[in-house]
Amino acid sequence: MSAPAIKDAKYVLGEKMDEGIPDFPSGPLAIYRKKASFSWKEMLQFLEGDEIIAFKQHVFRTLERDPLFARQPGENIPVEQKRELTFRRCKQLFKYDFVTRDDVMQNPWKMTILSDCLGMYDWSLGAKYFLNKGMFGATVANTGSQRHLMFVQDIEQMMTFGCFALTELSHGSNTRAMRTTARYDPSTQEFVINSPDFEAAKFWVGNLGKTATHSVVFAQLYTPDGQCHGLHSFIVQVRDPKTLLAMPGVMVGDMGKKLGQNGLDNGFVVFHSVRIPRENLLNKTGDVTPDGRYVSPFKDPNKRFGASLGALSGGRVGITRMALVNLKLAVTVAVRFSATRRQFGPKEDEEIPVLEYQLQQWRLIPFLAAVYALEHFTRPLCMNFVEFQIGLLMKDKSDRQAELGREIHAMSCASKPLGSWTAQRGIQECREACGGHGYLAMNRLGDLRDDNDPNCTYEGDNNVLLQQTSNYLLSWLQHKQQGKGRIESPLETVNFLEDMKSILQSKFTVGSVEECMNSGVPLAAYKWLVCFLLGESQRKLFHEKSSGLGDFEARNNSQVYYCRSLAIAYIEHTVLQRFHDLIQDEQTPAALRSVLGRLCALYGLWTLTNHMAILYQGKPLFSCMTMQTSGRLQHCRCPLILSDFVIQYLSVHVFQLYKNLWSTVMQGKSVLERPSWWAEFCSDKPAVGSLRAKL
Amino acid sequence: MSAPAIKDAKYVLGEKMDEGIPDFPSGPLAIYRKKASFSWKEMLQFLEGDEIIAFKQHVFRTLERDPLFARQPGENIPVEQKRELTFRRCKQLFKYDFVTRDDVMQNPWKMTILSDCLGMYDWSLGAKYFLNKGMFGATVANTGSQRHLMFVQDIEQMMTFGCFALTELSHGSNTRAMRTTARYDPSTQEFVINSPDFEAAKFWVGNLGKTATHSVVFAQLYTPDGQCHGLHSFIVQVRDPKTLLAMPGVMVGDMGKKLGQNGLDNGFVVFHSVRIPRENLLNKTGDVTPDGRYVSPFKDPNKRFGASLGALSGGRVGITRMALVNLKLAVTVAVRFSATRRQFGPKEDEEIPVLEYQLQQWRLIPFLAAVYALEHFTRPLCMNFVEFQIGLLMKDKSDRQAELGREIHAMSCASKPLGSWTAQRGIQECREACGGHGYLAMNRLGDLRDDNDPNCTYEGDNNVLLQQTSNYLLSWLQHKQQGKGRIESPLETVNFLEDMKSILQSKFTVGSVEECMNSGVPLAAYKWLVCFLLGESQRKLFHEKSSGLGDFEARNNSQVYYCRSLAIAYIEHTVLQRFHDLIQDEQTPAALRSVLGRLCALYGLWTLTNHMAILYQGKPLFSCMTMQTSGRLQHCRCPLILSDFVIQYLSVHVFQLYKNLWSTVMQGKSVLERPSWWAEFCSDKPAVGSLRAKL
Repeated sequence: MSAPAIKDAKYVLGEKMDEGIPDFPSGPLAIYRKKASFSWKEMLQFLEGDEIIAFKQHVFRTLERDPLFARQPGENIPVEQKRELTFRRCKQLFKYDFVTRDDVMQNPWKMTILSDCLGMYDWSLGAKYFLNKGMFGATVANTGSQRHLMFVQDIEQMMTFGCFALTELSHGSNTRAMRTTARYDPSTQEFVINSPDFEAAKFWVGNLGKTATHSVVFAQLYTPDGQCHGLHSFIVQVRDPKTLLAMPGVMVGDMGKKLGQNGLDNGFVVFHSVRIPRENLLNKTGDVTPDGRYVSPFKDPNKRFGASLGALSGGRVGITRMALVNLKLAVTVAVRFSATRRQFGPKEDEEIPVLEYQLQQWRLIPFLAAVYALEHFTRPLCMNFVEFQIGLLMKDKSDRQAELGREIHAMSCASKPLGSWTAQRGIQECREACGGHGYLAMNRLGDLRDDNDPNCTYEGDNNVLLQQTSNYLLSWLQHKQQGKGRIESPLETVNFLEDMKSILQSKFTVGSVEECMNSGVPLAAYKWLVCFLLGESQRKLFHEKSSGLGDFEARNNSQVYYCRSLAIAYIEHTVLQRFHDLIQDEQTPAALRSVLGRLCALYGLWTLTNHMAILYQGKPLFSCMTMQTSGRLQHCRCPLILSDFVIQYLSVHVFQLYKNLWSTVMQGKSVLERPSWWAEFCSDKPAVGSLRAKL
Repeated sequence: MSAPAIKDAKYVLGEKMDEGIPDFPSGPLAIYRKKASFSWKEMLQFLEGDEIIAFKQHVFRTLERDPLFARQPGENIPVEQKRELTFRRCKQLFKYDFVTRDDVMQNPWKMTILSDCLGMYDWSLGAKYFLNKGMFGATVANTGSQRHLMFVQDIEQMMTFGCFALTELSHGSNTRAMRTTARYDPSTQEFVINSPDFEAAKFWVGNLGKTATHSVVFAQLYTPDGQCHGLHSFIVQVRDPKTLLAMPGVMVGDMGKKLGQNGLDNGFVVFHSVRIPRENLLNKTGDVTPDGRYVSPFKDPNKRFGASLGALSGGRVGITRMALVNLKLAVTVAVRFSATRRQFGPKEDEEIPVLEYQLQQWRLIPFLAAVYALEHFTRPLCMNFVEFQIGLLMKDKSDRQAELGREIHAMSCASKPLGSWTAQRGIQECREACGGHGYLAMNRLGDLRDDNDPNCTYEGDNNVLLQQTSNYLLSWLQHKQQGKGRIESPLETVNFLEDMKSILQSKFTVGSVEECMNSGVPLAAYKWLVCFLLGESQRKLFHEKSSGLGDFEARNNSQVYYCRSLAIAYIEHTVLQRFHDLIQDEQTPAALRSVLGRLCALYGLWTLTNHMAILYQGKPLFSCMTMQTSGRLQHCRCPLILSDFVIQYLSVHVFQLYKNLWSTVMQGKSVLERPSWWAEFCSDKPAVGSLRAKL
């Protein structure tokens, strides 16, 4: 395939999609691309498939051509204006309607890809759009009934705007302790929504700050007999859609500036006995009759609680993917920069790209491997979740469906921490690897860090979530020990624990660095590690309990040693196993297996380094598994196919790094102007020490 | 001492200094303070001494009472306005003149404390003030001569404003490759300063964006015979102090938005054959006679280059301290928050402070220990540097002075990475440990992270600097091996290497966790570790060279294994050794030794965990040294004495956490107002799919 005639440095991938994937323009990166041991186009097609490639290009091209989406790298926009711009862009997305209901039915993966694309452009925009259509719309559709359909229709036409209010000012992780109440008044057939005080204000609600007219509100449901039936969700109108002014009894406002995602208006709301119709209760898990009796398909209030929160699992699956997208962007920026930036060299007059330094490779390439590993993990995870959701809609009451739910919960409670932390560390490493240039706002690395940061916190604090995963694993071990059957789960992530005994007794040595290049080696180490940590966690728990502690304290004191590490090792093993399986898969193109295999091995060896002390402690034979392999992967330069439109200067224009950096600086506002306050300097000099006081 | 009657929640420490250090007001933290095994006032006096305590309180009180320094937590200020505010505040500092020339002579430590105080308030302000008075003023004073004194005097009266221009757009770390030229023209007795192209633009220069009138500019000096004499520094006027407009031939501007420190105007400058008087050459290391001959006290151009960059060592010493200050602030915010935030509990109706969770202690307390370790390290380091500077001024040509310079260079090249990375990781951990609340701008954790971030990059990229330290250590080993004498340095940080052989052969086991509570244990491990890494680094270098690589490549390929780890282990050892010595010191109050000893042991054990794999590899006997000890330190709650004025809501008002958070939210601008663009939502609804295009 010959290179198309592209003269413009601002090159849009896919401009001529009908002629196939166009080549990259030539530039300093071309040397590295030529060194690749594989065809990047083949990799791209394998990763995405033609339909998704075309769809992504369509989305990026559409946004790029719309002036409303034009941005200046590093532009300095006040918070209020960011909120406004994000709203206008969100509204425009309704007109584009990139993924229709039919599209989703045909290919549910497209919705995730749209989220990827919007997030690559700006997470505030993606969040604003999906919190309304997805989080509000889907929650109403999934947890309500026929009578709530109109709320979904209104959202889809932007007649109303939705949000989702669970967290309160003083309670986040401990959802059971929420204090907003919904008391049923049979005399008017209404619920009275009330916040007992400001500590019970709903807090952090995305879209609520300035835009939302309707909210899903979680509150403790009380029937007239005074009984509390636990947390339920209600649709509460908070603003008048005709004026955007607050409804009576509703105090709703904007939380102000956050570290990032400032295009999204997070808000708070305090309810002063706000009355809503009885029908606004989302009644899938429980309902109140007109005369005030509580009826539920669930007998056990714990199960009801679990089911009403079950809808949240998708959030963590989505966040794992969001974090991956952030890591992709950051790694692309840093690797392209490193291939272009030259500093020092073997001779006085010749400088080499900083990517040639082993240390730079050691810092960046493992994160590139993580991108591939997480790409191949998040896609099937999303599909697993879709399968689970279909089961929910089909009212599948099978054991498999229940087990699938538990397993996805356990996986997502660990994959969100893994993804968000990997991205957090990766973005920071990329920022530092770009030196001072990485500290310029125009490079987006700062925005990526700030926008990725809440992924560690919302939808469950990472450290708190990991306990869910370790509890799941411990319960399997107990299940087996109590003779209740084999360890077998629908997605098979725990099946190897069935062989725990033999895995723990297995001995193996690794003779050479070459052997470590096979992903089977770190995979075997991970199997041992998970088994070891599972056993130790259970032992520690027993020990704490037998020393007289209650269940609560015993669990708390078993987190550092070893429950937390257990949960992380489990999900790393799962990611690695799925990547490893992909390489063994005959469907995987032969020409790509070698490079994918090296990335897989590198990912496994790299994540394993965090567990080295444990490995040595339990298995001294691992001693040769040093991380020297990363340096050996220097020729492993894989294409991360992103539209240049979504990246900013360091990589958009990396073909002419300094020239374009310089242009961006010079295009800034008032760059060469003297400051408005120049006279403050030039006259009225300070009398030095005039305000000095004696101590 | 009885509690003073303080009714106002906004409590200022030291309001009644004449009556001694006042107590803290009561509140949720009081329980923890009562549990302390020591007197926090005694600790404060030991850490700071009465003079410094009084001085800090004076600075904070002064700023707090001046409305120009008033801030709203999380306020949303555009970049231009931040620049202006910072300038105005800087000007006010001239009037306060907190530390006069006489004060510095009496107690040089006061200057560092002033920098601490200003940095705690806002690093942009500290940087603006000290880059002008310190970096410009001190460089001119130290590297110029009598003829340059007027430039210093002008700066001190704010007749002019200074900056320091070394870095260029395409060269930072590789200073020798700088391309700005200064050609001497004997016909007019002027230097012609020129930037060959925009890639040679001076870049990143603090104060240059909007304010500076004069700059120290580093350029390659050419004499009329065409010979280049290497990098020299010149005073170049860039703006007219009467108008703040650019001088002829000078294109000077603002670089725009950065990730942080946006109150500081970093700028760039391109010189188009700008003529400056011959006398503007800072001539300590070399001069040009009126007729154009180069004269220098140095024969070796390498030595001259070293001497002209020697003045920069202080920057790294200062940055180590800056990072510590950031860590102090973040740890204070997070620990206070954790003592107040309650979530979950052993019983349904009782929630416990999150600080009670072992995991939360495990995350935060090691950073508290790091604060103490680095406090006791940075102070003597600053004093060592002062001693070195005095030697410079006294023109001390002794071997000791030269060795002192080398040692401080090696120490600061590793202490800056250690400090900045510890702060970076600590701030991130603190941000996450505060959950969603940590993501609100009003808590300053975001600003701290953003403002600390460049500490990893400027004054030398961390990873590049570490090579200086490992080179220093390798040269000592070679010195010994070549029989040139003992390993002995003025500050004794390398003296233990003299016993390298016996240290490497030593065997010891640690029997119990209690034994690990003695800081001697991690200290001994560190001695072994540094010796081991030094030997391995040398072996790796030999190996690379013997396999045919040149010096440049051999060094590059020895960074990951093991030069980088060597440099880090060396500085961690030095920090630990100094802290350990302090505890042994009879001057240290007996009542504080126990808690300081535990902090010291915790710090040593914690930093050692990063080297566990190496320790196991080389010394399997370390297996019992787990980090379980951190949980045992839960009663170790030491006072970090900061003025509440400099911290924002999470800790200022931690006495009433939620109430004050709520007030801050409600005091925001337009919190409850509908957005200005409300009609965009309420009318003109988007026609869904109207812009939808077929793929």
